[in-house]
Amino acid sequence: MLRTFGDRVRRLRENRGLSQEALADRARLHRTYIGSVERGERNVALLNIYALASALGVDATDLLTGRGPRSGQR
Amino acid sequence: MLRTFGDRVRRLRENRGLSQEALADRARLHRTYIGSVERGERNVALLNIYALASALGVDATDLLTGRGPRSGQR
Repeated sequence: MLRTFGDRVRRLRENRGLSQEALADRARLHRTYIGSVERGERNVALLNIYALASALGVDATDLLTGRGPRSGQR
Repeated sequence: MLRTFGDRVRRLRENRGLSQEALADRARLHRTYIGSVERGERNVALLNIYALASALGVDATDLLTGRGPRSGQR
């Protein structure tokens, strides 16, 4: 699930033509943190989920999958 | 935002007739942790968001608001 979250962040970031550094600036996070999020290495907490979503111009819900491992439909 | 998240957890839990302890058991979390989440005192991380959603029988996205402070519509 962390991997899926990271993949979504990366895809949205790239779609917007943003570097990791540019996204980090927008979200007021560190560039290396963005990298580790995108690699699925971070159990990202709510406030950072909202910061990332806001910086990417999406809803926080767009970064999450559905119910997790038990709902593979999304 | 943490408060909104906590309120949703509480409302869903009560709708299901679950005690904090029962929800904690289902989510494999501690009862006191559930209480602090519901009071908006916890910056809940992804894996616990999924654990709570799964225990409540909802999608993780149902526990989150939209973009945060800038989108008051939801």
